[in-house]
Amino acid sequence: MPHIEITAELPGILGLFAFRAETAQPLRALSETLLRGSSTLSAAEREIIAAHVSRLNDCEFCFKSHAAAAAALLGAGAEFIERFSNQTLTSVISPKLAALLAVASEVQRGGKAVSADSIERARAASATDVEIHDTVLIAAAFCMFNRYVDGLGTWAPSSNEAYLPMGKRLAEHGYVEDTRS
Amino acid sequence: MPHIEITAELPGILGLFAFRAETAQPLRALSETLLRGSSTLSAAEREIIAAHVSRLNDCEFCFKSHAAAAAALLGAGAEFIERFSNQTLTSVISPKLAALLAVASEVQRGGKAVSADSIERARAASATDVEIHDTVLIAAAFCMFNRYVDGLGTWAPSSNEAYLPMGKRLAEHGYVEDTRS
Repeated sequence: MPHIEITAELPGILGLFAFRAETAQPLRALSETLLRGSSTLSAAEREIIAAHVSRLNDCEFCFKSHAAAAAALLGAGAEFIERFSNQTLTSVISPKLAALLAVASEVQRGGKAVSADSIERARAASATDVEIHDTVLIAAAFCMFNRYVDGLGTWAPSSNEAYLPMGKRLAEHGYVEDTRS
Repeated sequence: MPHIEITAELPGILGLFAFRAETAQPLRALSETLLRGSSTLSAAEREIIAAHVSRLNDCEFCFKSHAAAAAALLGAGAEFIERFSNQTLTSVISPKLAALLAVASEVQRGGKAVSADSIERARAASATDVEIHDTVLIAAAFCMFNRYVDGLGTWAPSSNEAYLPMGKRLAEHGYVEDTRS
């Protein structure tokens, strides 16, 4: 049960956006910049980083919605979310993304958990400074979004299929406009 | 040593803002909304929540800069940062803020660590739903900022006094404009 009185029909962060429009706006703008703004990482790669950290934080709503967005961007379906849940995505992940996900895993544990070794491995896999920066910031941002969504006790649909329409909307329209329309 | 090539003279998040202006803008806007936007929590109370979470995350730059901002807002000096470091601020904290800091401590551990009991205690201390919402979001946001600042290996001045001018600028001008000028 949510810890505050939010609109019952809106799951996850959507109920919180409706509850407090003042904070929804900069949070949506941050998501748009991180996940859809100018970057040499593809939108799918960035959604995979977001979903990966959300899975580590055990945030079902964020994990499944961003895994669904990655699936939509890659032309995949619910089986992609299932494979991601089971950590068997290796066939679609480049060595560079694998190295960046290792950095993201360290960020999830804490800022001081990021090691020079993992940064060096990302660089050896051809990641640039901006890509390393963006990976750390996306991972850090999902440590915020995950805590926001679960810290206020929001609900999440459980079936993978329920997230596919949201993933398609996020893939096609991004984060700034109302993703429920 | 920073993990990426950032301007050496700028500490903490300031070097990261200079490194990537695209992400600095929404991060500054989020800080401004959370810490200076419309709220029944005072700016000093919100800075104390930010500093409290940063202390729990062992992020020296964020802890001392937001403790310094709270000090400036309260007309205090470096001794306030020292007392905050030693967790002996109780005399300036209302029962409501103490209850909200307990919620923030749970958010720092993880979204699912937030308990119905701590929310109930905050409500019993007269916290509103919006104040509980904002506390959870500020705490979650500092789990992002702290990971961003330490995950990229930025440096932080160690003396409490070094943060006083920054705290004064943040108290007087907030987060959107360039706080270095």
